[in-house]
Amino acid sequence: MSQERILRLERDILSKNDAFAGANRARLKASGIFALNLLSSPGSGKTSLLVRTITDLQFHFPIAVIEGDQQTSNDADRIRATGAPAIQINTGKGCHLDAHMVGHALDQLPMAAGGLLFIENVGNLVCPAAFDLGEAHKVVVLSVTEGEDKPLKYPDMFAEADLLLLNKVDLLPYIDFDMTACVGFARRVNPRIEILTVSARTGEGLPAFYRWIEEHALDTALPAQRSV
Amino acid sequence: MSQERILRLERDILSKNDAFAGANRARLKASGIFALNLLSSPGSGKTSLLVRTITDLQFHFPIAVIEGDQQTSNDADRIRATGAPAIQINTGKGCHLDAHMVGHALDQLPMAAGGLLFIENVGNLVCPAAFDLGEAHKVVVLSVTEGEDKPLKYPDMFAEADLLLLNKVDLLPYIDFDMTACVGFARRVNPRIEILTVSARTGEGLPAFYRWIEEHALDTALPAQRSV
Repeated sequence: MSQERILRLERDILSKNDAFAGANRARLKASGIFALNLLSSPGSGKTSLLVRTITDLQFHFPIAVIEGDQQTSNDADRIRATGAPAIQINTGKGCHLDAHMVGHALDQLPMAAGGLLFIENVGNLVCPAAFDLGEAHKVVVLSVTEGEDKPLKYPDMFAEADLLLLNKVDLLPYIDFDMTACVGFARRVNPRIEILTVSARTGEGLPAFYRWIEEHALDTALPAQRSV
Repeated sequence: MSQERILRLERDILSKNDAFAGANRARLKASGIFALNLLSSPGSGKTSLLVRTITDLQFHFPIAVIEGDQQTSNDADRIRATGAPAIQINTGKGCHLDAHMVGHALDQLPMAAGGLLFIENVGNLVCPAAFDLGEAHKVVVLSVTEGEDKPLKYPDMFAEADLLLLNKVDLLPYIDFDMTACVGFARRVNPRIEILTVSARTGEGLPAFYRWIEEHALDTALPAQRSV
């Protein structure tokens, strides 16, 4: 099969996805819902970060989650244990969420207007970068255990994100990780990216993430949560 | 575009890949080269593991490496610093190595007969599972920092692999990782998978990996390296 045929198909897939993403974005905006698309490698700690964030913020405004994984409903089960509603999407052989899947999940998700929606993508630092889901922002999570070179080696993901959360900073004393180099690499790929260091395990740095959410949700109906 | 059209295209791509993989396998066998395809999430420590393995084994038999990454030649540079030859494949937007790319790399790689070839795939626990490269075995590397649930959440990769290396076990005292559960999950997905615990940083467990290589290379021209 020709390279040209593959490229044409990719363009078709992405253009169809963009149409669904536009519809999701309009629908979320009409409901005043602030949506974040969380992206990372497998095992960077996205779900632990969400569990802690929901526990800390859920009495300030409604929070719901769409979970993407190849298999299992483990992550949605962990989210539901916090009391927040969650829909699990299993992609099977698929390596990313697309906007059509997210639209179907929105149909099923009991979600109040003026809330916060987290979409936890399939753990994959490559493919999900290309698929707009209708979110307000892409947030990339990188565990410091993965090494400082990842922004250069997987540039598309870091170029697409508005926020980089450097997670598991509680492990910094036990590993070789060059924070200055990592920040420099991320800014080289994406000069406008914001960067926060956090630990979902200890809670370190999470208040700054919560402030980031509040500041970026100002144009939606998400109520202020200054008491956090 | 119809789902059927996408499925047909996927079948076309995989069947074309399988033909190239068969050619690579025949070529490697004819040269008595034992090839391992290393697969994992980004940042699991594949390159560090290779650097240590090459340093320990390269005086026993020739070793060469094919490196896959979206961007940069960082990994090939790290391998070449050991003295071993390495070819870097940059996949650009691509999320996996395919057998055609590996065939081209073999054309350029100065490799003696009767050696060991490592193919370090793009860091991605999803897509590379579907692409046979002509290797003798797929080896999946999972860092214990990624969590014990990964075999269940990304089952295709663990189902395809013959060996699971649980890496970064030097970090076990500082994290929550259930080793028994992880081994159970891996065996649930793939009852015949062999599992070794290693640390590329401290060297713990690596002699067992070297023995595994020696035992599995018996049907190739790789000379015994019992003195290791």
